[in-house]
Amino acid sequence: MSQPKYVGKMEWPVAVQIGKGLEGAITSETEIGYVDGEKGWLVYRGYNIFELAENSTFEETTYLLLYGKLPTQKELDEFKQKLVSYREIPGEVIDTLRKVPKTTHPMAALETGIGMLGCLDPDADKCTMESETEISFKLIAQMATVAGAIGRLRQGKEPVDPDPTLEHTANYLYMTTGKKPDELMEKVMDVAMILHADHGMNNSTFTTMCIHSTLSDMYSAIVGGIGSLKGPLHGGANEQALAVLLKLKDEEDATRYVKDCIANKKKIMGFGHRVYKAYDPRAKVLGKFSQDVTEKKGMGHLYRIAKRIEDEVIAAYGEKGIFPNVDFYSGTVYYAFGIEPAMFTPIFAVSRISGWCARVLEYFRDNRIFRPRAMYVGPRDLTYVPMDKR
Amino acid sequence: MSQPKYVGKMEWPVAVQIGKGLEGAITSETEIGYVDGEKGWLVYRGYNIFELAENSTFEETTYLLLYGKLPTQKELDEFKQKLVSYREIPGEVIDTLRKVPKTTHPMAALETGIGMLGCLDPDADKCTMESETEISFKLIAQMATVAGAIGRLRQGKEPVDPDPTLEHTANYLYMTTGKKPDELMEKVMDVAMILHADHGMNNSTFTTMCIHSTLSDMYSAIVGGIGSLKGPLHGGANEQALAVLLKLKDEEDATRYVKDCIANKKKIMGFGHRVYKAYDPRAKVLGKFSQDVTEKKGMGHLYRIAKRIEDEVIAAYGEKGIFPNVDFYSGTVYYAFGIEPAMFTPIFAVSRISGWCARVLEYFRDNRIFRPRAMYVGPRDLTYVPMDKR
Repeated sequence: MSQPKYVGKMEWPVAVQIGKGLEGAITSETEIGYVDGEKGWLVYRGYNIFELAENSTFEETTYLLLYGKLPTQKELDEFKQKLVSYREIPGEVIDTLRKVPKTTHPMAALETGIGMLGCLDPDADKCTMESETEISFKLIAQMATVAGAIGRLRQGKEPVDPDPTLEHTANYLYMTTGKKPDELMEKVMDVAMILHADHGMNNSTFTTMCIHSTLSDMYSAIVGGIGSLKGPLHGGANEQALAVLLKLKDEEDATRYVKDCIANKKKIMGFGHRVYKAYDPRAKVLGKFSQDVTEKKGMGHLYRIAKRIEDEVIAAYGEKGIFPNVDFYSGTVYYAFGIEPAMFTPIFAVSRISGWCARVLEYFRDNRIFRPRAMYVGPRDLTYVPMDKR
Repeated sequence: MSQPKYVGKMEWPVAVQIGKGLEGAITSETEIGYVDGEKGWLVYRGYNIFELAENSTFEETTYLLLYGKLPTQKELDEFKQKLVSYREIPGEVIDTLRKVPKTTHPMAALETGIGMLGCLDPDADKCTMESETEISFKLIAQMATVAGAIGRLRQGKEPVDPDPTLEHTANYLYMTTGKKPDELMEKVMDVAMILHADHGMNNSTFTTMCIHSTLSDMYSAIVGGIGSLKGPLHGGANEQALAVLLKLKDEEDATRYVKDCIANKKKIMGFGHRVYKAYDPRAKVLGKFSQDVTEKKGMGHLYRIAKRIEDEVIAAYGEKGIFPNVDFYSGTVYYAFGIEPAMFTPIFAVSRISGWCARVLEYFRDNRIFRPRAMYVGPRDLTYVPMDKR
């Protein structure tokens, strides 16, 4: 589905076609970005994601999402310095994370860690544009630190303090792996962070806006977003897509897998999207990186298996608009860089926090609580029956 | 607005009038309950809230919301026993709550405590109907225990262990105040719990469904619901409504307050509702209790001030459908019972958990991820400008 046609200022209320899962329903106006599902475009603030992936950095893209323009060098330097200044997290958050079992899903730990961060911020409930903006900077910086600490603790290692000399993505990787990334890893992961930073009115973004629209606080909104992103139908899909690839021996095995899925009408992980009916632009960028990175890391077979699945699926369903989505290739890249699959969705959160904050702040400027309706189809006009008459 | 007209099985997609904040948008079908805003009715599973408030208990009403029928004695006994068996919470949750500053909003602490509860449950990610149902029982029981512990800790007191001989509401009050409630307090608070257990497609309920629709886990969904309920435009309103009442000296002061609000077009806390255009049935029940309870507790002036505000507002705006909502009188009752205002919204969560769980489970049966759209109104087709050309 392409972006709904827009002519002039939208008037509320409007009648639109709504499908189950609010398909097609319009939540709000936005200047932040959109998905053109027919063209296979993802756009942030008017810039096509292909241009940003090629030219920008995660910090610059985050600035763009928040402020609506590309920064000057001075603006970018100040913004980066602000993020660096907020990287450290209170010891109470680490202490809390230490109580989380190693077997816990890291996204559940992330919710709890960010929740505790909110409990410790005396400005959490100010609920002004100024306070929510400042908390956004904190959250963009600290999501990486909390996620990094979770990644370490679940492997029985000590958290790594942030390094103020590193760029945001490099520092996140350093806090996760304990090693400074090489040039290739830093570059590719930074592009992955750009690609995941925003994506129209996806479930987690909508969740954050929905929560904040009650004038609840930014931390509560973001905790809800993390909970949503955790789901296998949303951010959790990348981990699941890789799990399939790892089970397949070679390209022939991949062909068998797809034919079996088709014959038995099983969902093929990493394919299809509510909005994209063309090739997901994020998968296009990451697919190319997947080929490079897996080859360099001696895991070329992983890419070849993935590519075979893609070819088979497109041959079968391409005409129906079924193509790889972002989750299909992202996992191969992360895995080739030695990141454990359980940490894939936290990487997504460390990136998507930019879009979440930008969209919550935008909606907050002209807030109205989200309060839809349901269609009641149950019994009516029942009379209470005393216990002894049941 | 009344319940949307329903004739036969609803077909998706349908075109409906959508307003800002998704006003009028239909999220889903439900057999759990609805609000008839024109008649001033709240209905659970076909039973009018007036009948349930008069005859039922919180446990029975929760059973009704979950199972769609009033339980037999045996069913109710088993259900109550199940809840009692789940009342205790792990020590790690209490340890986590001890790290939360006393000045933190208790709803933020509640999010973090329930988040930790999820981290500690090895069944959290099973995501089957059976596991999600069992986790619902746990959460209905443990929301009270976590909220009780938060209420104690923020007053510098030790948490009180649950008492298996007490009913759910009485036990919650015991864990909060450290004293077993008298008959009046137990009865009135239990009715308040019934009244708050479900309320159509309100923001927090929708948030829980939205999160769980990604096939994320029940804890993540409920943590999001708590974050939503925290907001002053949702559950947080009861605390704010009482704060206004406490500032007014007497009935004449109340009249001045309303006239000032009207003259300066200020929002009057505790009045008006997106759905109700008639008197909120919950306010009707609680208003009566407010008169009784405040008089018995020597705070009759609080009710008289509230009643004066109500009379003035209805005289001015009653024809426009502005009446007291549930938040207007609930605070007076809780306050008269000696509960500190910061704990009002947690009481709401301890009750609404029933509706949250019932509706998440219902939607889960025929799940589709919520994924609406936004209307992009920003710039288009921009070209990336290198840093030195900006």
